[in-house]
Amino acid sequence: MKLTAAEIYRSVEDIRARSPLIHNITNYVVMNNTANALLALGASPVMIHAEEEVADMAAMASALVINVGTISEPWARGMFKAFAAAWENGVPVVIDPVGAGATPYRTLKIRELINVAEPKIIRGNASEIMALTDSSLQTKGVDSTAASGEALQTARIISKERNCTVCISGEIDYVVQGDRMVKIANGHPMMTKVTGLGCTATALCGAFAAVEKDGLAAAAKAMAVMGITGEMAAEKSSGPGSLQMHFLDILYNLSESDIHLRLKVEE
Amino acid sequence: MKLTAAEIYRSVEDIRARSPLIHNITNYVVMNNTANALLALGASPVMIHAEEEVADMAAMASALVINVGTISEPWARGMFKAFAAAWENGVPVVIDPVGAGATPYRTLKIRELINVAEPKIIRGNASEIMALTDSSLQTKGVDSTAASGEALQTARIISKERNCTVCISGEIDYVVQGDRMVKIANGHPMMTKVTGLGCTATALCGAFAAVEKDGLAAAAKAMAVMGITGEMAAEKSSGPGSLQMHFLDILYNLSESDIHLRLKVEE
Amino acid sequence: MKLTAAEIYRSVEDIRARSPLIHNITNYVVMNNTANALLALGASPVMIHAEEEVADMAAMASALVINVGTISEPWARGMFKAFAAAWENGVPVVIDPVGAGATPYRTLKIRELINVAEPKIIRGNASEIMALTDSSLQTKGVDSTAASGEALQTARIISKERNCTVCISGEIDYVVQGDRMVKIANGHPMMTKVTGLGCTATALCGAFAAVEKDGLAAAAKAMAVMGITGEMAAEKSSGPGSLQMHFLDILYNLSESDIHLRLKVEE
Repeated sequence: MKLTAAEIYRSVEDIRARSPLIHNITNYVVMNNTANALLALGASPVMIHAEEEVADMAAMASALVINVGTISEPWARGMFKAFAAAWENGVPVVIDPVGAGATPYRTLKIRELINVAEPKIIRGNASEIMALTDSSLQTKGVDSTAASGEALQTARIISKERNCTVCISGEIDYVVQGDRMVKIANGHPMMTKVTGLGCTATALCGAFAAVEKDGLAAAAKAMAVMGITGEMAAEKSSGPGSLQMHFLDILYNLSESDIHLRLKVEE
Repeated sequence: MKLTAAEIYRSVEDIRARSPLIHNITNYVVMNNTANALLALGASPVMIHAEEEVADMAAMASALVINVGTISEPWARGMFKAFAAAWENGVPVVIDPVGAGATPYRTLKIRELINVAEPKIIRGNASEIMALTDSSLQTKGVDSTAASGEALQTARIISKERNCTVCISGEIDYVVQGDRMVKIANGHPMMTKVTGLGCTATALCGAFAAVEKDGLAAAAKAMAVMGITGEMAAEKSSGPGSLQMHFLDILYNLSESDIHLRLKVEE
Repeated sequence: MKLTAAEIYRSVEDIRARSPLIHNITNYVVMNNTANALLALGASPVMIHAEEEVADMAAMASALVINVGTISEPWARGMFKAFAAAWENGVPVVIDPVGAGATPYRTLKIRELINVAEPKIIRGNASEIMALTDSSLQTKGVDSTAASGEALQTARIISKERNCTVCISGEIDYVVQGDRMVKIANGHPMMTKVTGLGCTATALCGAFAAVEKDGLAAAAKAMAVMGITGEMAAEKSSGPGSLQMHFLDILYNLSESDIHLRLKVEE
């Protein structure tokens, strides 16, 4: 793969043209943002979590995004059923292990979840990714970072074990699949002052996975679009309130030249 | 009824003056938007769903709005109890059958819900309305449309059977009560790129139903205010992010002349 | 205590420097706003409510904020467990008794909640505070006000009985601890047209309580920052949509001179 602006924009155009149905089982905090970001990108979001219907919806979706942010037992049951149904129907599944490592319950549930079937993409910050396997790390809330070396090693192990792409997001995003890796250096520090932009990145991974079979390419394209949109929005904003607004406007209008001018990728 | 700007604005002024309490049992995605839209219009929203207290709240509300977007069993129990309590106390009930037809569980629950008592207004898109009765239609997510002829026929049947107003929203909104019909052609395509504006329309139906006994008039006024506010907001916006912000500002400041200049109604 | 701009800003700087972890168990309507306001202020919000993990999270937080807005039985269990764990670990707890008095179930649950252990701060409007003890008052929704004399008397009683600070917010905010009282007259009427700014005020109380041991000072500082930020935002806004955006931008950039120029406090 050569991750060029043209290649990324081709997928954006695919999403806009095909408007893939993205089934999201996500947390209460970001549902609205996630849905709006998917709409602004051109996808068609649906939010359904009840165990009585998740399998039916996941089976007909173009991608399933599972984000455990505000997980509880009834929601966990929905997530497990949806994942199984997606897997049986060839629907790619993207997982956001929000807060992995923060509490024993959460860590346990997340580890169970990623073993239901093979995820297509797992996206988290360094400490969340490290908490997916045994490690002594304790997460401080949901925004922690950790030494990228150790996190990268964990990402490679999980990628091979679970046959999936692992994305570690942060100031630089690392997208890992087996021994392949793409680094993306787009983004802006003010993005950390808006809740749920990480969750939005995960949702965008779902939209790209719906039109792009290669998990590494899908995640890398999503992270590039996320970072470029975020830095364009931040530059126009006097704070995190206006950043949120500009983010959606810019994502809606994103052009190939926007991507071309800003893309910072290393393969 | 003659749906003039003056007549619509009279109800807006009634809402602003009386600040009716609108009890919403709605989905997680749009709760914040719904509450803000009701506040911007001048109503007083309350969001309560637990089965232990919904009946007490619904009984004292000026209208009850039930939106099944992220339904699950505990919420369904709350919706059924609230509807029954509203009915016993003469409180008008507005129902949004989000995603009817998308899964068997959802379709079943929605059909049960609209039979708890007589709704005042049911508002959905064409495919959702069609899924309220037996039909072979399968919804693609929650944003589908369908041939308006078939949907209109279904709307008339439901309106007569359930003694209620049925509103089919889309590029043109059709408000049907028995053999009466009002068409409203306001709105803007960018509104479909903001999540939950359909849910907001339903909530506004609740506010208008609180001050206007005729269901057809209440729904038509709500859809006109929704469409006019949305098109004014879209014209000022470079994307769906700013549309959301302008929508609330414009709704808060809406004048009779705004309505007069833009109203596109056909009776 | 002398509540000067310098003293308030010292705490703002503490929050920005230490980024305290604020554990929120709050309602669905405002989760996103609450998280964004805490981020804009410089704190680190986490939203976790499941009874299986709340105790672990509350024990390691710098403050716990409990808001009962959309309470139900599973959430109540999480709130009780989190409060107990916070208390055992010396973590200050802030409670928002949203809608106290509105229904018997709600009033009962809230009274049970404030008796789990000693809250640091309780913040509500006049009618909510009055409903914390036996009274004939019936709340109209969640935005009611009541005669401040009676509410103040109740606040003093609760403050002494529960050994906590009680904040009655409204056009003037009254912060009461035993026989001490601080009045803050900042704010803007348009703030009542944005959902959940009261809930945001409560969350800010949590952030200030994380860096300021005196409950009266913490609550007073939070209400001052809230009111000043709100009035600065309202003056730049043409309606409640833009108010929301400006609120976050202004909070993110709040300076000592902003506070100094606007602070209206009476001790």
